[in-house]
Amino acid sequence: MISNKMKEQVQSSSIIRAMFEEGKRLAEIHGAENVFDFSLGNPSVEPPEDVKKAILEILNTESTTKIHGYMNNSGYEDVRATIADSINDKFGTAFGQKNILMTVGAAGGINVILKTLLNPGDEVITFAPFFGEYRNYVNNFEGQLFVVSPNTLDFQPNLEEFKQKITPKTKVIIINSPNNPTGVVYSEETILNMADILREKQKEFGTDIYLFSDEPYRELAYDHVKVPYVTKYYENTIIGYSFSKSLSLPGERIGYLVIPDQAADFENILIAANIANRTLGYVNAPSLFQRVVAKCLNAKVDVETYNKNRELFYNGLLSYGYQCIKPEGAFYLFIKTPLDNDVEFCNLAKQKNILIVPGTAFGCPGYARIAYCVAYKTIENALPGFKALIEDLR
Amino acid sequence: MISNKMKEQVQSSSIIRAMFEEGKRLAEIHGAENVFDFSLGNPSVEPPEDVKKAILEILNTESTTKIHGYMNNSGYEDVRATIADSINDKFGTAFGQKNILMTVGAAGGINVILKTLLNPGDEVITFAPFFGEYRNYVNNFEGQLFVVSPNTLDFQPNLEEFKQKITPKTKVIIINSPNNPTGVVYSEETILNMADILREKQKEFGTDIYLFSDEPYRELAYDHVKVPYVTKYYENTIIGYSFSKSLSLPGERIGYLVIPDQAADFENILIAANIANRTLGYVNAPSLFQRVVAKCLNAKVDVETYNKNRELFYNGLLSYGYQCIKPEGAFYLFIKTPLDNDVEFCNLAKQKNILIVPGTAFGCPGYARIAYCVAYKTIENALPGFKALIEDLR
Repeated sequence: MISNKMKEQVQSSSIIRAMFEEGKRLAEIHGAENVFDFSLGNPSVEPPEDVKKAILEILNTESTTKIHGYMNNSGYEDVRATIADSINDKFGTAFGQKNILMTVGAAGGINVILKTLLNPGDEVITFAPFFGEYRNYVNNFEGQLFVVSPNTLDFQPNLEEFKQKITPKTKVIIINSPNNPTGVVYSEETILNMADILREKQKEFGTDIYLFSDEPYRELAYDHVKVPYVTKYYENTIIGYSFSKSLSLPGERIGYLVIPDQAADFENILIAANIANRTLGYVNAPSLFQRVVAKCLNAKVDVETYNKNRELFYNGLLSYGYQCIKPEGAFYLFIKTPLDNDVEFCNLAKQKNILIVPGTAFGCPGYARIAYCVAYKTIENALPGFKALIEDLR
Repeated sequence: MISNKMKEQVQSSSIIRAMFEEGKRLAEIHGAENVFDFSLGNPSVEPPEDVKKAILEILNTESTTKIHGYMNNSGYEDVRATIADSINDKFGTAFGQKNILMTVGAAGGINVILKTLLNPGDEVITFAPFFGEYRNYVNNFEGQLFVVSPNTLDFQPNLEEFKQKITPKTKVIIINSPNNPTGVVYSEETILNMADILREKQKEFGTDIYLFSDEPYRELAYDHVKVPYVTKYYENTIIGYSFSKSLSLPGERIGYLVIPDQAADFENILIAANIANRTLGYVNAPSLFQRVVAKCLNAKVDVETYNKNRELFYNGLLSYGYQCIKPEGAFYLFIKTPLDNDVEFCNLAKQKNILIVPGTAFGCPGYARIAYCVAYKTIENALPGFKALIEDLR
């Protein structure tokens, strides 16, 4: 009785679900402490103390009907103004509260924008490897997703192929930097070149092409790498942000969209996005956590903990002979699988109680994603298994 | 540049948005205290003390990565089990945790179910007057909404017309009791007869027809009226619940679906609804408030406050000559407008600084909705305006 679209989604979700079931099965046999689950991007670092402080302060000083009540579907005006100011301080932009729309996480934000912009058949382009959910989000609105093949040299986007994939029906480009699954940060040069291509194609086709920058990992960057603020490079940019990783609040579903004045048809997009937020059934971003994040804009999880995991894992894997780009952000390593068949390799890993996700799930076969948002000890304990795994294959 | 669907939604939202703007404009001219806004269903009664207690207890006793982290997309297992037990205690049902799916409010729940069930062109039936958002929700999944015309005698559903509207393409029926906008509770007789009709039609067409019962107002019932628990009357029932009104938490977006074992294709619906919750971009219901509501299942806002508003407003309006069914639930009065043209009447009301919503917005012209979830004093101060309004029209 379920819909055809959901039949497809159930089918395509079954690999990851099977892995989840397998993880539970392994944990029952071997004990949870002997199963090394690197399959999920669930932050392991505690939220900063400021979060709890903010909750208590709000509960003790604000009216409960305000804290938990309805507000404008776009979010509390004061929260949006505070966020705009904070972005302006950090990046030298000039946003006001009207440019900010509070969303149910980054996933809520991207759905709001795709509903706002896409007519059935409109084309969306993203770059492999990419977060597999984009396919479902685009499909929610009958858009067509086109994927630029991966540049496995350094995992910066393949801009030559990108240029060729843009057509008069291209409406939205989705980028994600720091990237899930590679951890790569798209460089300023990449963004500059991408903006040039988009402007050229807009002119050629007489269209507007929106660049959607999905930025849940913005704050998780290492080695002082610069993560370009994309609105400064291209007018038709819309940013999707989430506090899931920066404040370790993934379950709370809190994020925002930045819709700049410079974006084509700005006024209508604002009105439509506000309504789409409502009619998609989100109604508004969760109210208490809107107020909480506004008080925590200078707080951040302890990124050094992730950094230590990164160093340990990356150096360990390299010493065993694995090939991997050193990630500059997020909390993922994207290794080249020693077997060409990444699904088969991940199955072999499972036999050593190691759970990692085949690159195929991200449109990039021959690779695998390792989420290192886990306890340091888990990595230490798992490394011998990774060593044995590659040695078995020699 | 916005999508055609959103152009339509912007258009159809403009009446209510215009009212909102008008309210702000009037408040600036006359002062907020002299504008009587009965247009919004935003709870005025404080959440029960248990809510704050629960938040503090959770913050002080549970791990922060658990409180704010990802869980199964359907929600925390312990929360779902607690909710199932509570429903079983209250209604003599036999649900387990697997039957409960935590959602981003009732709006999130209904969207999850419609995505799970509807193929493009599938038919959905609801009963006027009805919550206008149903139209947008059904439209999200390319369903077709058919509306049974209102029975203005007592606002119980018109079951004769309902029977005629069911076709082999009918997939979902949406009911809402206590009802927005009438405040009417659908009687046990109504539910029994509706169930008989549905079983008969299922047999005739060899189809499964799901009855979706949207129940955000379940706990707001007066005069000891019984609100039937619909799963007990019809196998293919799915319940959508929200804590928005029962605990005055509308901004927090927390509710759940009940999907009984008896529903046709139960197992697939469970799997698909879990995935739909994720792919629609909700991902999961907000985590802290999942844990909060599980501790507040026996708490309830002070319904007596709404009841006093109801009595004052209803008796006042009747004494001036207005016609209105006495509502048994929710926090709305649905008056027959003294002018046949309800939109015109609401415009006249605005001239007296009174904001109410035309019945046309609920598929029921000739009526108007008055939300009495406001301060008692606001009603007292507004009553002379209502009196003058009907006298002007004589």
